[in-house]
Amino acid sequence: MATTKTAKKVEQTTDVQESALNELFLDELKDIYWAEKHLVKALPKMAKAATSDELRAAVQKHISETENQITRLEQVFSSIDEKAVAVKCEAMAGLLKEAEEIVSETEKGSVTRDAGIISAAQKVEHYEIASYGTLRTLAGVLGYNEAVDLLEATLAEEKQCDEDLTILAVNGINKMASTEAE
Amino acid sequence: MATTKTAKKVEQTTDVQESALNELFLDELKDIYWAEKHLVKALPKMAKAATSDELRAAVQKHISETENQITRLEQVFSSIDEKAVAVKCEAMAGLLKEAEEIVSETEKGSVTRDAGIISAAQKVEHYEIASYGTLRTLAGVLGYNEAVDLLEATLAEEKQCDEDLTILAVNGINKMASTEAE
Repeated sequence: MATTKTAKKVEQTTDVQESALNELFLDELKDIYWAEKHLVKALPKMAKAATSDELRAAVQKHISETENQITRLEQVFSSIDEKAVAVKCEAMAGLLKEAEEIVSETEKGSVTRDAGIISAAQKVEHYEIASYGTLRTLAGVLGYNEAVDLLEATLAEEKQCDEDLTILAVNGINKMASTEAE
Repeated sequence: MATTKTAKKVEQTTDVQESALNELFLDELKDIYWAEKHLVKALPKMAKAATSDELRAAVQKHISETENQITRLEQVFSSIDEKAVAVKCEAMAGLLKEAEEIVSETEKGSVTRDAGIISAAQKVEHYEIASYGTLRTLAGVLGYNEAVDLLEATLAEEKQCDEDLTILAVNGINKMASTEAE
């Protein structure tokens, strides 16, 4: 057992740690808030650029999901009495720049453009999966139960979206491969 | 059955598609080659900044894995008679910038710094998982069998690394939570 003095020191140390952990949580929250807000602006361009109707429909579905996820993030901020603030997420900025490059470098109406869009979208989804996973873990240890539920709901959607994109990718290029075999 | 004329048109179309798909594969390959080469330079700083011995050891293990993965990428280039070329990967540049910011914004020796490093590292791993997943799928349809094997070996390592980091994250913050409860 710790002595009272040691116990007090432990308490102070963990207070400092908890405050720092809270700051990390807030930083990550502001980062993904920026990321989602910019993603939702980029997605319509990706939907428009898509070749197949299936991919266009999948991207459009993700636009409404993303709008919903933005609302959930605002609820997370509100649940811990913080103002919703977006801080530039360098990683998402890079991911969206890559997505734009893929569209501009591939031919309109081609299978390759779809493969490129799916590739870019899956990188975005994986970024979000990693980010929401961290946020949920941090929210758990900080005792932010409402935030945990909100973040878990979004995490499940992002994972599902990634799986849907994998199916589209495999189907799309298999279709191309079978056309070749004709 | 297609007429000869239609069959010829299909053949031409798929030739064009395959060439474009090959270009996409090469672009992605050059992108991840840049990403890995820059990651391997950033990892020693992350290892040095880590608080816990477990995290330092995990990052150090990933340095040697990454070196190996770079060699595998060179083998992929060589297997399709291409020169290994690195092209700037904006997403990885952003991810590494974020990782640097986390280190500079957190206190040396703190649990929070480790949580931040793990978060940044998992985003990197997820980027790589998405990237190697796409590359493997594209290599498969392009019939690059040697490349498929090489890319799959790396993909399995990246997934394992992400799982190891999740365990470290959960253990690390649980340890902190149990200290708080003392």
